[in-house]
Amino acid sequence: MFHDLFNPSVQHALDLAGIFVFALAGALLAVRKNFDVFGIAMLAMVTALGGGLFRDLIIGAVPPAAFTDFGYFVTPLVAAALVFFLHPEVARINRLVNVLDAAGLGLFCVTGTTKAYDYGLGLTQSAALGLATAVGGGVLRDVLANEVPSLLRDREMYAVPAIVGAGLVAVFISFDALNGLTATIATVTAFGFRLLAMHYHWRAPRAWNRRSAVSEDPDANSAGV
Amino acid sequence: MFHDLFNPSVQHALDLAGIFVFALAGALLAVRKNFDVFGIAMLAMVTALGGGLFRDLIIGAVPPAAFTDFGYFVTPLVAAALVFFLHPEVARINRLVNVLDAAGLGLFCVTGTTKAYDYGLGLTQSAALGLATAVGGGVLRDVLANEVPSLLRDREMYAVPAIVGAGLVAVFISFDALNGLTATIATVTAFGFRLLAMHYHWRAPRAWNRRSAVSEDPDANSAGV
Amino acid sequence: MFHDLFNPSVQHALDLAGIFVFALAGALLAVRKNFDVFGIAMLAMVTALGGGLFRDLIIGAVPPAAFTDFGYFVTPLVAAALVFFLHPEVARINRLVNVLDAAGLGLFCVTGTTKAYDYGLGLTQSAALGLATAVGGGVLRDVLANEVPSLLRDREMYAVPAIVGAGLVAVFISFDALNGLTATIATVTAFGFRLLAMHYHWRAPRAWNRRSAVSEDPDANSAGV
Repeated sequence: MFHDLFNPSVQHALDLAGIFVFALAGALLAVRKNFDVFGIAMLAMVTALGGGLFRDLIIGAVPPAAFTDFGYFVTPLVAAALVFFLHPEVARINRLVNVLDAAGLGLFCVTGTTKAYDYGLGLTQSAALGLATAVGGGVLRDVLANEVPSLLRDREMYAVPAIVGAGLVAVFISFDALNGLTATIATVTAFGFRLLAMHYHWRAPRAWNRRSAVSEDPDANSAGV
Repeated sequence: MFHDLFNPSVQHALDLAGIFVFALAGALLAVRKNFDVFGIAMLAMVTALGGGLFRDLIIGAVPPAAFTDFGYFVTPLVAAALVFFLHPEVARINRLVNVLDAAGLGLFCVTGTTKAYDYGLGLTQSAALGLATAVGGGVLRDVLANEVPSLLRDREMYAVPAIVGAGLVAVFISFDALNGLTATIATVTAFGFRLLAMHYHWRAPRAWNRRSAVSEDPDANSAGV
Repeated sequence: MFHDLFNPSVQHALDLAGIFVFALAGALLAVRKNFDVFGIAMLAMVTALGGGLFRDLIIGAVPPAAFTDFGYFVTPLVAAALVFFLHPEVARINRLVNVLDAAGLGLFCVTGTTKAYDYGLGLTQSAALGLATAVGGGVLRDVLANEVPSLLRDREMYAVPAIVGAGLVAVFISFDALNGLTATIATVTAFGFRLLAMHYHWRAPRAWNRRSAVSEDPDANSAGV
């Protein structure tokens, strides 16, 4: 059992911090979409808790942590209230929110993989659920906001750092080497990868011949973005 | 255990009535969207049963009631058939459908909260699942119809009566005072609140500075609606 | 228990073939929507595994087969890679993909109904879950791609063959006559029905008075399609 990879209270504080930042991103999208106060609260909840909820339903961990840990439940509502009253200020520190979001991504792909493996899934499937834990809330958020999930189309490589982090955890487990240190390494690697991808605007490819079309006619491509 | 708050057959008849009315609303949206007969049936099913299905998956009550009680299963199909053949007549009594929908909202937030608590959730989480039971079907309906869920943006205060009803149940439970009478009080309070909100067009606020922008420039706001 | 209706390894090979073809359809939609490589992989996964995942969550078969059988997991990724590199070629054999998709539809409605019944659901509900197994992935795919699910509106009668196949299985079970032969009959019937519906462009009706409007003014109808 890897429940105690980190000091439990440190782990819980990190979880809450990740949930808080994910909720900020969800609430900000709701404000941009001109949603009312319930839309803001709901998008904050879904973004912050949706990925873990999906993981817990798949592995049979019911009721999901989102419904048993009061902190998990109330943290997104605090973030929603903050955005409700102060969203211009929150939007102004968007760069900081993005950095914190990258940290949440790194943390959730590691804890998600670990929890799935604890519940008996195979290594590959555990890593896939770790990825789903990290990105699932954002996909649900975009579906509820009636937008194409940015994960599917914006080529921002949001998934790659989570795949790397979750994959590292799976490798560490298979070598019987998962502990607080290696889990931290996986988290920081995913976090750093995401920061680099944002900084250098790394782009995920589209389907093969569309990509080759780009080199012939770059304008057509940028119009398609 | 609160399974027997109401007389069981009365409870079941009320459940079926609520399911029937929610299904009518879903089927009418499908007709407006020009869906075919399968779209009408599916939107009726999802609207009527989606909220309870979500609740049952979360609390681990599988298979969900929607798949074990034959009446729950067949009632939305009857409503869909009715709308398929008679939708102009059903649309004409839209005001009555809205009143019945308010009654369904009141009933489902109470029964949802009670069932979640019976399955061991905390009071706050039980109330949240009661809310989800009452409004979840409508959110799923709008997602399937490829619209922004009206709950998130239309400022109609659809959520508030359900929050009040579910919250009242949680308060009654915490004072060990939940019984048929107090459950009826919670249901009727939510129902009446919803009727008042519809009648007086109460509106939920948008994010703070957008709301203050309204007083400066009301036209800009109404254009945004 | 009907797990051994077909020879297990034959059953598994058929499952993988169905998953592969459904994944092709999902990946091709992702390419048409100009998604990046993650969108292609995710839409392939969701289309191929979404229906079975929904069924397994409802009947409480967790972790779902999609997360325990490595073949189920990796097959959609192979299909996604194929479409990523060769999508013009895959799109060119669209007619063949549609025929194989019809075969997958026939297979999944039968195996879905059987599995749901094995887990204790009633006959009607088992048939409904068989239908959901066959069409659920496509609905999820369209929701993620931010389109109205084609099942709800395009009048293509995609659901009818699955209803017929699932219904036949329920009838066979109720007469205690489900075996490899009758399961094959149900599969082939659904498959053939779907081929006929495609070939003759059978159309599902819209709501009643809209349909009668067609005979008066066919142009108005075709404009609505």
